[in-house]
Amino acid sequence: MNNQRIVLASRPLGEPTAANFRLEEAPLAPLEDGQLRVKHHYMSLDPYMRGRMNDAKSYAQPQPLNETMIGGTVGEVVESRNDKYAVGDKVVGFGGWQLYSTATGKGDVTKVDTTHIPLSAYLGSVGMPGMTAWYGLMKICEPKAGETVCVDAASGAVGSVVGQLAKLKGMHVVGIAGGPDKCAYVRDELGFDECIDYKAFPEPADFYAALKAVTPHGIDCHFENVGGTIMDAVLLRMNAFGRIALCGMISGYNGVPIPMAAPQLILQSRLKIEGFIVSEHMNLWPEGLGELGGLVATGKLKFRESIADGLASAPQAFFDLLKGKNFGKQLVKLV
Amino acid sequence: MNNQRIVLASRPLGEPTAANFRLEEAPLAPLEDGQLRVKHHYMSLDPYMRGRMNDAKSYAQPQPLNETMIGGTVGEVVESRNDKYAVGDKVVGFGGWQLYSTATGKGDVTKVDTTHIPLSAYLGSVGMPGMTAWYGLMKICEPKAGETVCVDAASGAVGSVVGQLAKLKGMHVVGIAGGPDKCAYVRDELGFDECIDYKAFPEPADFYAALKAVTPHGIDCHFENVGGTIMDAVLLRMNAFGRIALCGMISGYNGVPIPMAAPQLILQSRLKIEGFIVSEHMNLWPEGLGELGGLVATGKLKFRESIADGLASAPQAFFDLLKGKNFGKQLVKLV
Repeated sequence: MNNQRIVLASRPLGEPTAANFRLEEAPLAPLEDGQLRVKHHYMSLDPYMRGRMNDAKSYAQPQPLNETMIGGTVGEVVESRNDKYAVGDKVVGFGGWQLYSTATGKGDVTKVDTTHIPLSAYLGSVGMPGMTAWYGLMKICEPKAGETVCVDAASGAVGSVVGQLAKLKGMHVVGIAGGPDKCAYVRDELGFDECIDYKAFPEPADFYAALKAVTPHGIDCHFENVGGTIMDAVLLRMNAFGRIALCGMISGYNGVPIPMAAPQLILQSRLKIEGFIVSEHMNLWPEGLGELGGLVATGKLKFRESIADGLASAPQAFFDLLKGKNFGKQLVKLV
Repeated sequence: MNNQRIVLASRPLGEPTAANFRLEEAPLAPLEDGQLRVKHHYMSLDPYMRGRMNDAKSYAQPQPLNETMIGGTVGEVVESRNDKYAVGDKVVGFGGWQLYSTATGKGDVTKVDTTHIPLSAYLGSVGMPGMTAWYGLMKICEPKAGETVCVDAASGAVGSVVGQLAKLKGMHVVGIAGGPDKCAYVRDELGFDECIDYKAFPEPADFYAALKAVTPHGIDCHFENVGGTIMDAVLLRMNAFGRIALCGMISGYNGVPIPMAAPQLILQSRLKIEGFIVSEHMNLWPEGLGELGGLVATGKLKFRESIADGLASAPQAFFDLLKGKNFGKQLVKLV
């Protein structure tokens, strides 16, 4: 039986292209004692992967060249030499961009229950993106009922959870998303109070005016996924003692870093800005995933997925993700 | 008996000039019941005053035009119609740029003990600047023995206290100051481990190299008084989970705001940056001033003062302060 995988063939300069990736096929090695074989149903595409493609100092080791691209996966155990896992078990793990992965069962996969929660959600609202939203909102923003929270990339895997959790906490929720369809979804289906289509305001002054109009009492908490000019405008609307959870800065991932125009606002408004990586707070995952799982199972936390079909579609789907062409959590379906 | 005062005559555009100020003389009004008259011995000049001269949204109301310039003062009660204050009492308050102030005694002045602590120190190491250092270091940086702390404007009223407190906590202390004399003082008299003369490295790349050389294990905690290119270099040296207490950004006070070159470092290094104003944390002043007073009284906390002579010298002394020409706490002696 053969496996197919996508490796990073070369490091992108600026925007990644198809030439940076290579699809390979090779026979699967027999399992050793204790190992299990997982057939991936879905793999996750996430913006953080762009950073890993650089050979630069960052919070994680760079993706090695000519090795399987890293990434979260959900699937089914199809072969097991480990007593704790049986064929048919559904598991979430970090199997990478390939059809099959081999796990040790020593912390690298986790069994999940798909009775009330669809398998793919464990890569989204009940997985790393959901936990990212939960951690940033609950532990950095410390939401209070009546306060105003702002989140960009609002229709995405992380932003959609941030806004819905904030609504459940009684906050006034303002989303920022790209395009009228995404904004309609954010407002009408996810229940945000407001959504600004940033693409409708290419001039920073116009975007700022639009943001001001929907935040008459300023912004107390901001969840940042994008950075750049959006963050600059939000900083101008932050109230005294505001909190900013800095989760991503996708606007600068493909090019040179985008400066922060007016850092003195951090002082003037006595803001707290905190960058975080949710995988460094694993001790909180049981609490967070428990809450998120309950909300998804009872229909209180909605989500949407963009699903690309087949392993070979992954690079293009990833390029589109970096440009915001996805709508909701970006997955690649493998079976 | 006449009072003399300096009022803000017009708002500076960029660097303030003598034309922005006016010295006035007027008779002192008789005291009302409960009031006391304070003859100022020293008044304090501080960088924050520049911000107050703008008519812009900030953390405090702008300094009103044609009113006495605000500012901290220490002095002696020379007349009292308040039972709690006797002639001869030494008090610290916020009397402004003038020879005499009239206090209500209802929280606007505080009696101080000059047995072991010189009166002027209540405007410096045992006053607002000292508390600023104490709060930022203890409450935002949360110092740990063995960690590296960096502070700029290191010979100044705030920075000198930051570094000495950090040494007492067992930290590796790196100062940044302007000129060889200030650096020698910071190292040899205040006991910092290292001091970089930023004026010796006008090129950002050279300054960064100098900073790197004295922070072989990176920087865990930074106390920011200056902003601009110094902050940009420090950000590149910050370790994961580093803390930055954002106290001042004097490099941008007179002109347009200076951008932060690489805000993505906040995310990549998972930093916490927090802006603060020490007057919003009055509940901690008794604890902090108690500690600082004890250290000054026992000679464990050293300080230096630049003293201008006479009320009329205040504007020029203030201009010099903004350019870093002072050496230690800038005061104006009035008697």
